[in-house]
Amino acid sequence: MSSISKIINDPVYGYITINDPLIFDVFSHPYVQRLRRIHQMAFAELVYPGAVHSRLHHALGAYHLMGIALADLRNKGIEISRDEEQGAKLAILLHDIGHGPYSHALESILVENVSHEDLSIAIINNLNDQFNQKLSLALDIFTGKYHKHFLYQLISGQLDVDRMDYLSRDSFFTGVSEGVIGYDRILKMLTVKDGKLMAESKAIYSIEKFLVARRLMYWQVYLHKTVLSAERMLVSIMQRARELHALGVAISARSEPLDFFIKSRETNTIVGDKLELFCEMDDYDVMSAIKKWVNEKDIVLSTLCRMLVERRLLKVQFSPEKPTDFTIETLKQRVSGKLGISVEEARYLVFSGQAVNTTYNPMDERINILFKDGAVKDISQVDNALIHQTLASPVKKFYICFMALP
Amino acid sequence: MSSISKIINDPVYGYITINDPLIFDVFSHPYVQRLRRIHQMAFAELVYPGAVHSRLHHALGAYHLMGIALADLRNKGIEISRDEEQGAKLAILLHDIGHGPYSHALESILVENVSHEDLSIAIINNLNDQFNQKLSLALDIFTGKYHKHFLYQLISGQLDVDRMDYLSRDSFFTGVSEGVIGYDRILKMLTVKDGKLMAESKAIYSIEKFLVARRLMYWQVYLHKTVLSAERMLVSIMQRARELHALGVAISARSEPLDFFIKSRETNTIVGDKLELFCEMDDYDVMSAIKKWVNEKDIVLSTLCRMLVERRLLKVQFSPEKPTDFTIETLKQRVSGKLGISVEEARYLVFSGQAVNTTYNPMDERINILFKDGAVKDISQVDNALIHQTLASPVKKFYICFMALP
Amino acid sequence: MSSISKIINDPVYGYITINDPLIFDVFSHPYVQRLRRIHQMAFAELVYPGAVHSRLHHALGAYHLMGIALADLRNKGIEISRDEEQGAKLAILLHDIGHGPYSHALESILVENVSHEDLSIAIINNLNDQFNQKLSLALDIFTGKYHKHFLYQLISGQLDVDRMDYLSRDSFFTGVSEGVIGYDRILKMLTVKDGKLMAESKAIYSIEKFLVARRLMYWQVYLHKTVLSAERMLVSIMQRARELHALGVAISARSEPLDFFIKSRETNTIVGDKLELFCEMDDYDVMSAIKKWVNEKDIVLSTLCRMLVERRLLKVQFSPEKPTDFTIETLKQRVSGKLGISVEEARYLVFSGQAVNTTYNPMDERINILFKDGAVKDISQVDNALIHQTLASPVKKFYICFMALP
Amino acid sequence: MSSISKIINDPVYGYITINDPLIFDVFSHPYVQRLRRIHQMAFAELVYPGAVHSRLHHALGAYHLMGIALADLRNKGIEISRDEEQGAKLAILLHDIGHGPYSHALESILVENVSHEDLSIAIINNLNDQFNQKLSLALDIFTGKYHKHFLYQLISGQLDVDRMDYLSRDSFFTGVSEGVIGYDRILKMLTVKDGKLMAESKAIYSIEKFLVARRLMYWQVYLHKTVLSAERMLVSIMQRARELHALGVAISARSEPLDFFIKSRETNTIVGDKLELFCEMDDYDVMSAIKKWVNEKDIVLSTLCRMLVERRLLKVQFSPEKPTDFTIETLKQRVSGKLGISVEEARYLVFSGQAVNTTYNPMDERINILFKDGAVKDISQVDNALIHQTLASPVKKFYICFMALP
Repeated sequence: MSSISKIINDPVYGYITINDPLIFDVFSHPYVQRLRRIHQMAFAELVYPGAVHSRLHHALGAYHLMGIALADLRNKGIEISRDEEQGAKLAILLHDIGHGPYSHALESILVENVSHEDLSIAIINNLNDQFNQKLSLALDIFTGKYHKHFLYQLISGQLDVDRMDYLSRDSFFTGVSEGVIGYDRILKMLTVKDGKLMAESKAIYSIEKFLVARRLMYWQVYLHKTVLSAERMLVSIMQRARELHALGVAISARSEPLDFFIKSRETNTIVGDKLELFCEMDDYDVMSAIKKWVNEKDIVLSTLCRMLVERRLLKVQFSPEKPTDFTIETLKQRVSGKLGISVEEARYLVFSGQAVNTTYNPMDERINILFKDGAVKDISQVDNALIHQTLASPVKKFYICFMALP
Repeated sequence: MSSISKIINDPVYGYITINDPLIFDVFSHPYVQRLRRIHQMAFAELVYPGAVHSRLHHALGAYHLMGIALADLRNKGIEISRDEEQGAKLAILLHDIGHGPYSHALESILVENVSHEDLSIAIINNLNDQFNQKLSLALDIFTGKYHKHFLYQLISGQLDVDRMDYLSRDSFFTGVSEGVIGYDRILKMLTVKDGKLMAESKAIYSIEKFLVARRLMYWQVYLHKTVLSAERMLVSIMQRARELHALGVAISARSEPLDFFIKSRETNTIVGDKLELFCEMDDYDVMSAIKKWVNEKDIVLSTLCRMLVERRLLKVQFSPEKPTDFTIETLKQRVSGKLGISVEEARYLVFSGQAVNTTYNPMDERINILFKDGAVKDISQVDNALIHQTLASPVKKFYICFMALP
Repeated sequence: MSSISKIINDPVYGYITINDPLIFDVFSHPYVQRLRRIHQMAFAELVYPGAVHSRLHHALGAYHLMGIALADLRNKGIEISRDEEQGAKLAILLHDIGHGPYSHALESILVENVSHEDLSIAIINNLNDQFNQKLSLALDIFTGKYHKHFLYQLISGQLDVDRMDYLSRDSFFTGVSEGVIGYDRILKMLTVKDGKLMAESKAIYSIEKFLVARRLMYWQVYLHKTVLSAERMLVSIMQRARELHALGVAISARSEPLDFFIKSRETNTIVGDKLELFCEMDDYDVMSAIKKWVNEKDIVLSTLCRMLVERRLLKVQFSPEKPTDFTIETLKQRVSGKLGISVEEARYLVFSGQAVNTTYNPMDERINILFKDGAVKDISQVDNALIHQTLASPVKKFYICFMALP
Repeated sequence: MSSISKIINDPVYGYITINDPLIFDVFSHPYVQRLRRIHQMAFAELVYPGAVHSRLHHALGAYHLMGIALADLRNKGIEISRDEEQGAKLAILLHDIGHGPYSHALESILVENVSHEDLSIAIINNLNDQFNQKLSLALDIFTGKYHKHFLYQLISGQLDVDRMDYLSRDSFFTGVSEGVIGYDRILKMLTVKDGKLMAESKAIYSIEKFLVARRLMYWQVYLHKTVLSAERMLVSIMQRARELHALGVAISARSEPLDFFIKSRETNTIVGDKLELFCEMDDYDVMSAIKKWVNEKDIVLSTLCRMLVERRLLKVQFSPEKPTDFTIETLKQRVSGKLGISVEEARYLVFSGQAVNTTYNPMDERINILFKDGAVKDISQVDNALIHQTLASPVKKFYICFMALP
């Protein structure tokens, strides 16, 4: 068997090594390389200019942490075979393969009602065929079917390497040092009991900090007003383009695949050719369309596109209460008058929404703490818990997004 | 007036500048330079080998943050005169001048019942005389008498630059990256309203993280079993030496000032010559005595000293309940039998205690959050507060410290 | 006058502040914001996945260093007026405004024979009109006409803030820690004598390290084989597209401005409308065209485009000697046979070139060292100089770039 | 066999693991733990307040790098047995065990004419007996007798892990970021050919930077005027104490072992009891003596001690030429008159010396570069070498050290 050892410089972890030929071949596949051209944080770079790292970089980072986690678990006597190691590493490398352009911002918009997880499964299935079923174990782990459930939990759980990497990486590239987490310490404290992933009690304070860092990153970075505004504008743009097409207006993105997804209203599932078409899209298709539409005749579309390209964004205001219909109607009328568009059309430039984040949801997937005496407790149940009941309920903030007029 | 600009390399902040001749003269005074020879974290280096930074370094760091805080406040229109700036900077530079050898570990032990704060006031008073009353304003700020109370709060309050520096510095030198706080962001968000220091509402998540980082550093670092053990052993050693002297046993530290404080039982207050003598002591006096006493005849003293020097420490066990008298008595008897000392004497090698830490105590000094509408709320009262009522009560852990026998 | 204070998170320097309304308005101009969409390091991200930072980020960073440099010089008594400060800051903010898509990689290719510096001057002139001649001083400083020559040297010289930022930033984002330079120390050591920028003798070792870091970054990063290959392929693609058009083949980039520059062969100078068109282009236009051309009929073009998109690059070999015509011809014939294209067309897939870098060229712009006794020496003339004569001559490496066939 | 896994937080490398019981036992031995109380950089902390790390910390760091180096070499197919790994790790852990108080500053002074290397060998021999000859292989590797010479070269050679750690660690703790080297990259590029350690040609630029970083650290940090002055004063103090004793003056250090070495003039070799006595000394013994001697009657001794304790140091001036006897004599006379001491005695307060450093000495131990074609060249012989002939000759700077009088 051919041997391989690729070493990749990563400013976050130092060096990342790929020394399995199958993993390297999967990594080199155009579907994966496409993730180079998708921003991990969509428009966060409009506020944090350093936040331009790619989804490929995140996938690599999570893969790296998976390697550390598996090695640490093995050192504790948890049995993990070479095949399982390969499977878990492939699964995490591919965990975000179903993301389209601008990731979460356009999720379920370009391909309506289809989550990126479902797309990931479809694409991994497709790759599994291309790679002669060598990704079957990875697929089982990814979908939670494999009997060693802790491998799934490392990919998708409260303490998964996905979150550990994106928090570490996003805080690094934004320069928000407060998002820094002790990923290395948490990894060293993970263990498996009765087939389930848990953390040793020494890790409690590190996990508290991890949850608080995540809470901070949500409200301070991911849901930053400017980021929220730009990403909502992006959605407005795509929806307006779609509507124009539905109304019979000749409209064209520069890119064929994007054109297809705007016009065909592919919903619920995509397979075969469509999947391949999906895998041709990235941020470049979307941003190129937006740059083209700056000169579109439709005022709504061209206005939104020009504003986004020139970074003159809709204004966002948060409020604990849902904004009244009256407030929204008034704002729409002003915009309608100013731009010479109908009040109905103004809904693309004036709208409200809700941002939600839960610091810790024990209903969802628990963080189990293993004590020295063998007892297992949920982190919200330990003595002097920081993570208390009230943090389990989601925090909701209403917002209104509107075009500011002089 | 002579001009000056001293630039000091600091691995934590980059460069620290002193460009005020008076501040530089105070910094160069032997009383301050003495802090070079006092570890900031006493025996934490027995667990975290990098934690050997000095109290002088911390004083310099806090001085640096004070400069940033004052500049940021001035930029927001808060009036701060040049004299007030100098006073506040001198006050923070001197805020720990009253610390003796091994700082907190021996506080109120070497000079019984006198806190390091009281000693600081006494020494600043003394320096004020030496510097022709040029430190009067600094003294007023330090003691809270100055009418601009926010200057005092920057030195001693929930959001003071003292805590910001020690958390940043201690996490840097220990390598516990989880103690990292966003000091620069918090400083930028500080403001003054009605003469009181408060934080803008944007800072809420950063402050939450600051409090959680402090909580983590307490339980993970400052109260680490090994650190606790070594510091309790240090106290045992000093108390045994004092007892031996009281019993008429000829015992001598290598150092004259330390000898004096062991033998004279100076209590409650120290002035004049005694203060000068106090200012001659540092970690070197204490550790040299301990190294000498390794060969002392008294078994209790020599055993403790040898164990500390060779890093073979008493064992520590935490428990939610106070250890029973029976447990302690049993352990004492074993040690007594093993070492050939009385059960009474065994109390130096077997004892219990209590570690206490409060994550946030609103009774003490509140963290006020200023909202955009002018409202002011305590941080535990804001919506979706992480810092809830239960964190306000101190967490107590009992421990037992004892000599482990084979 | 309106007051402003924008604080931008930068992972390299912490926080960058813009508090001058004119500078903020210029920063917000679409021409400048466009630099968000141009990679600082073109295709370096194919090797260093973190190297995706934008040219805007570099401009901001250099602006930040300029602020520090001017403040440090002022502290040394060098007179710099508020207007000069504003001018120098604007000049550095705009120093790379003339860069088109993929920066250096396509320089003088898209707009033949026009350097990015000339384009920068043209665009700053244009902006100066838009801003009512308020950028005149900035323009004079940028073009070296202003009498305080040291301001020009800070923008473009051996020790300019441009280089200091790009070395710092590129090493940060690539994770090549060896490129780290002591920019803060060098800045603190800069001074002005007889109107010229020079460095105090204490800075000699830091400057040596700066030159060696630059040397390392050149050969290890900027001229990395993979980077070189991708960037040469990009040039081949643009030249082939241009040739196809010249041959009468209907070819179209998705983007109108890019189409214009490919087809019109604008050379030597661009003004008016053309300049505006130029300012509409960024990396998105080029990469979108390449993605489109993957399906072009022309084999040369589609092959190159598909290879670049899928990161299957031409092979590069360095050699001290120029590759022989025979070697090149042989390779071309193999490619010609394999792809079914003419040998002549194979020149897009097989070609040679030369990479050149000079560690220190004293002919160009000297680094003057100011000694305490007032003497001034070139850094290559000081005692025990590391930077000796032989480093002054450019290092040339030949390379051959070719499509590898099984 | 008992299993063990100790994880130590290191701010430089993250985590350091010891999982070999023998290595842990050696690490826990009082002779090794003593290195906790010896500063790695002696008095550098008088300039760089963070430079207070211990020699134990350096030993741990070098041990960590050895582990990485051996693993990397094994991955390349170099055969290294488990015993050889243990031996090499023990050898590097103990490589500085022969250092006494204040390391290099007092080397060959306290124990005249005995280098720390010779003392290291003596102590490792002693430990080998205590550990039942289990350190024999470590000793053979350390002394260069073991046939796999590359293991010795990793401990003591141009590219040894000792230098890599101290450069990394010293630059970290001083905050002199310019001393940062790419240790991880260099380690990855090491290989063994014909039993000799060499570096792959890709590492050339990293090694150049390593040598330049070392050059910078020497002149900027290790030979910083203030550091040089403090360390020369320390030598003066010890020599004066020794002379006073020789003259029959009753003089006593607080510490018995230090007293012994001052008074007995142990030279050339130390064994048995003397070795044990040596291993009881650390910085605390020396600094305590100095603090005591502040009040000594002898003016020379008390003056030097008070100056050092209060950080009022002798002035240092560098010069390319040896200072003339006339200059020195004049300065001595002034000091003699001022302090009321003889001109002869003034030699402790006025003296000259020479600082020497060689950037790269190919005579010493070559850095061999292995090219892809199998050729091996010395780094000073490669094309476009930065490390040229003139850097091979040592740089000498004369200095004069004297008490400044008003």
